[in-house]
This record gives sequence, C-alpha cells and structure tokens, in this order.
Amino acid sequence: MLSLQSSSSPRWLAQVDQDLELVLIDHAHCEKKAAGTAMNLLFSYVDNEQLARDMTEIVREELEHFNLVLDLLKRRAIKFRKVPPSSYGQRLAALIQKIEPQKAVDRLLVAGLIEARSCERFSLLRDHLPDQELAEFYGSLFESEARHHSTYVRLACHFQPEQQVRSRLAELAAAEAEIIELGDPFARVHS
Amino acid sequence: MLSLQSSSSPRWLAQVDQDLELVLIDHAHCEKKAAGTAMNLLFSYVDNEQLARDMTEIVREELEHFNLVLDLLKRRAIKFRKVPPSSYGQRLAALIQKIEPQKAVDRLLVAGLIEARSCERFSLLRDHLPDQELAEFYGSLFESEARHHSTYVRLACHFQPEQQVRSRLAELAAAEAEIIELGDPFARVHS
Ligand SMILES: [Fe+2]
Ligand SMILES: [Fe+2]
Ligand SMILES: [Fe+2]
Ligand SMILES: [Fe+2]
Repeated sequence: MLSLQSSSSPRWLAQVDQDLELVLIDHAHCEKKAAGTAMNLLFSYVDNEQLARDMTEIVREELEHFNLVLDLLKRRAIKFRKVPPSSYGQRLAALIQKIEPQKAVDRLLVAGLIEARSCERFSLLRDHLPDQELAEFYGSLFESEARHHSTYVRLACHFQPEQQVRSRLAELAAAEAEIIELGDPFARVHS
Repeated sequence: MLSLQSSSSPRWLAQVDQDLELVLIDHAHCEKKAAGTAMNLLFSYVDNEQLARDMTEIVREELEHFNLVLDLLKRRAIKFRKVPPSSYGQRLAALIQKIEPQKAVDRLLVAGLIEARSCERFSLLRDHLPDQELAEFYGSLFESEARHHSTYVRLACHFQPEQQVRSRLAELAAAEAEIIELGDPFARVHS
C-alpha cells in the first residue's frame, strides 16, 4: 500500500485499545508536525515553485486536520497537552543523507512514507474502532494523507531522475518497515 | 499607528523606487517568514488553545499572501529567488528575553510589531505607487496585517498581566523605531 513494505502488527491495535486517549492527543501533535515538516521544506526549497505551492497547500490541510483533532478532543473533554513523541520520526530522520540533492530527495521521501504509514493506520482505525464518530473521522482523513504521499514522491523527482527516486524510495520503505516494527512501549499513532 | 512609535522615513520610499522588483521578491519572503513565525509559536505554546487556534489561522493567511505575491511576480515575469534578508528581523529577535514568561511575551510582541510595521509600509505603498494593480494589492493586505497585530498583542496578555504587556510593548516599540530608522543599504520591505 502506497510504497509501504509492511502492514502494522496487531500489537499496535492492542496498544490503541489500551490507551485511546493518548493516541488521540498524539494524533493532534502528528498533524502539527506534518504541517511543520511541510513548512521546513518550503523554507529550504522555496525557489522551486511547484514545491512552494504544494507545501503551502499541505501546511493548510495539516493545520485543518490539527484543528479537527482539537475539536474532537474538546467534544470528549480530553485535555490536550504535550506528550513525548514516539521514536518513529527521529529514527526516520536519521536516515536522511546530508548532501544535496540526496538530502532533498530523502526529506521528501521520508515525509511521504510518514504520510503513507499514517494512511495505513487511519484505515486500520476506521475498520477497528467500535466508536462510530472516530471510525468515520479516520476514514475521512485517509484520502488527503494518501494525496500528500503522492505529492511528496512526485516532488522528489524534481531533484533526481525518477528511477533513482523509486529505488531510494524502496530502500527507505524497507527501513521504515523495520522502524515501525520496533514500535514503542507506549501508545502513539506511530508506536 | 498600531503601537508604532515612528513613521517610515522618506528614505525608504526612495529605495523602493530604485528597486521595486527586489522589494516585491523580498515581500514574498516576508510573508513566508510571517507564516514561519506563527508556526514556531504554535510549536512552542501548543497547549494554549487560543494561541494554537489563532496561529493556525495566521499561518493560513500568511501563506495565502505568499501565494498572492508569487502570482504577482509571475504576472510581471519577475523571477522569484532567494535574497539576503534585511537586518530588521534579526535585530528585533535579539531583543527577546530568554526566560519564560517574558520570552513568550516578547516573541508575541515582536511578531506584533513586525505586523504593525508591515501594515504601515503597505499603506505607504498603497498611497505612493503609481502602478494601480500594486497600489490596490497593498491596500488589500492592510487589514489582515492590522488584525494580526492585534491578535499577537492580545495573546501576549495570556502570559503576563495586560499592564505589564503594554509597558513592554512601549519599550519594544521604541527599540523597533530605532531599528527601522537604521535601515539597510539595499531595498527591502523593512530596509
Ligand atoms: Fe493530516
Ligand atoms: Fe498529511
Ligand atoms: Fe501577510
Ligand atoms: Fe500578517
């Protein structure tokens, strides 16, 4: 699915069932971080017009998702607060090469893989959660995260030939599959 | 006007007349930076719900302005590119205190003063530029930058009592007036 090389293990849904509130709070932070990632890419590669236009759109959509999750927390009287992030993002960031243009390609592909994994997990939540409002909410986010995935992969091809990008994507996706399998002892969107 | 303690010197409009293209390119970067500042504040103080909601809205509006300036550059066949920023932002950032809650107050007030100065300069451009499209464009941005100024000052009062915020705002505005008077040898929105 969307370049991913693994499906989430059943361990993750068990974590979600044990601490759904924490997953919802972490989800708000993930949407904020997705917006922050797109903003950082905008700053780094602002003279690539297509990238600049696409990043402004992704920032807008991720902040809209962030607000939707805040609304959801509020309706459920769950207090939004800072929580330590899962190790997923940092482990993926460590894979990014330091020299351009590989750096740009890796930053875009890592962002794309995070979108893909979020997408996969949102679809699991949609099918798994007995709570109808939550199941529908996760179903509604699926499409835009899938679109973000494609945007990032397409933009990576502005920096290297498509064949190279595809082969690097396969490498990074293999690493992502190992990282998501490691997980975390606490419940998060990417634990 | 909007807490500012000075009006821009005629020197600045002379700089604009000498290199309008550069001012337009720098303006795009300023809108991007305004979005980045709001995003950074969102990350730092995300557990303040009002601040989080207001910052998502400001990010959205600044990125919309950024896109509008890119459109304008495109219609005029001006190539958007990276340009060294004016010294204004860095000089103002140096005034921000390092300890909370003063740090939060200063970050918000400095952001508010930059909005106020942009507002003042946009109104000068609206009245000064013979080019009708540009004059109208700057007129159209005036209102939202003024609103952003008020939002930042209002949010600062979440971190300290209003009286303290007002007195710090006067101090920072006095410093801002000196900094904008220094200017830069090249044409920028805040030169
Ligand atoms: Fe999202
Ligand atoms: Fe996304
Ligand atoms: Fe703006
Ligand atoms: Fe603004």
